[in-house]
Amino acid sequence: MGIFEMGSSRIGIFDSGAGGLTVAGAILAHRFFDEIVYFGDTARVPYGTKDAATITRYALEALEFFKNFDIDLLVTACNSVSAHAIEELRAQADFPVYGVIEPGIWALQKRRLPRDSKILVLGTRATVQSGRYQSGIRALGYERIDAIAPSLFVPLVEEGIFEGEVLQSVLHHYFAKLETPDAIILGCTHFPLIAEAIGGYFGHKPLLIHSGEAIAERLESLGYAPHRAERTELRIFASENPAALKRTAKRWLGMVN
Amino acid sequence: MGIFEMGSSRIGIFDSGAGGLTVAGAILAHRFFDEIVYFGDTARVPYGTKDAATITRYALEALEFFKNFDIDLLVTACNSVSAHAIEELRAQADFPVYGVIEPGIWALQKRRLPRDSKILVLGTRATVQSGRYQSGIRALGYERIDAIAPSLFVPLVEEGIFEGEVLQSVLHHYFAKLETPDAIILGCTHFPLIAEAIGGYFGHKPLLIHSGEAIAERLESLGYAPHRAERTELRIFASENPAALKRTAKRWLGMVN
Repeated sequence: MGIFEMGSSRIGIFDSGAGGLTVAGAILAHRFFDEIVYFGDTARVPYGTKDAATITRYALEALEFFKNFDIDLLVTACNSVSAHAIEELRAQADFPVYGVIEPGIWALQKRRLPRDSKILVLGTRATVQSGRYQSGIRALGYERIDAIAPSLFVPLVEEGIFEGEVLQSVLHHYFAKLETPDAIILGCTHFPLIAEAIGGYFGHKPLLIHSGEAIAERLESLGYAPHRAERTELRIFASENPAALKRTAKRWLGMVN
Repeated sequence: MGIFEMGSSRIGIFDSGAGGLTVAGAILAHRFFDEIVYFGDTARVPYGTKDAATITRYALEALEFFKNFDIDLLVTACNSVSAHAIEELRAQADFPVYGVIEPGIWALQKRRLPRDSKILVLGTRATVQSGRYQSGIRALGYERIDAIAPSLFVPLVEEGIFEGEVLQSVLHHYFAKLETPDAIILGCTHFPLIAEAIGGYFGHKPLLIHSGEAIAERLESLGYAPHRAERTELRIFASENPAALKRTAKRWLGMVN
């Protein structure tokens, strides 16, 4: 059963900046919706280095933006928002609000890795400090969990560095002392853009959990039908310089209205 | 002649975040004032990746903060603010407002390097794109000017990386193709914290121009007397998490009230 048997469907995606475009890309690819309304808070990016109260305040301001559109549901692509503000958003929205953390944990669960598997959580400082991924993964029965905040990953991606010597030395900086993981949670929307290098650092190619794919799986499980729309239109809004965000969308996703 | 023959003196220092503490440190060391009121807009840091209109809006909001204090003058330690918002700040303030760009250019001028010297300007994207340093240096008669925005320097410093393999690979990433400079403008408040590595990359140790020292020279030239105060009290305010900013001040400057 599709939730939307008729009429046009619209999803809101909120992120601190451009990173959430990786989530938009996954949702675009599945054509669940006729339209994506994307809002990036580029004037105040990044969120992941800020504290819970600030992140919540910004998220509630973004909610006011989305109230101007007739959206069917809102996805907060930003892990830092999902970690700290999801309950507040749900309390104040009159449409369903999904974060990316719970879907990420659910995607891991579905892979049915052995219970002694080693799980590595990568996120911003705000996400890791919230402990949301860690407690969710522990609840699945996994006990071997590392969680680190490799703060240089976001600026590296923003700088367009997806491979090469600088990236390798940064990976070494954060990963050298870790035990080799069996699965890695890419707990920040920027990280899928360097997923190949992250996975490649560990020779055996661990399972990578990507927020965009996780939320797509979750939407499907909720009854949103893939390929329902002939095409999905992506409308991009930003708190500063929307033209720059549209250029990034073109570069990362190859399309934008 | 000292400008303040009597009464207590107070300077305001504004920065996007913690970086301006390097400027506060230079002003502290000279004991020009009885008190420094420092405001870091930590809830919206960084500014250097944002656009001129956003930076100006944020700077004017900070000005409202400083109007609550009886300050003798305001220094915008942030180069990005100095590059884009200094005229607006001056138009709306009823105290003198100094940026760090003009003092930096003046400090370079005082060194009287030969006219064929090669000058390298390092700054945020916002600062470099403004062209303020470049035009000021050109007006001194220098024509061999490189200006680049090494965007990873700020996150490296924020991450506490002041030396080692990661820093060296990042320096190489930005500097490998440059001609060896005779002088380097450290056009961002974070850069003095890795000044040794920046200078050291170029074997012959170029002259380094540091915003904090430049503004201290400028203040002295304006009649502010060094060692006027017995001690300078540093009061720290932030738009989020002032406790974290105070801890950074303690770490970088070794003191705070």
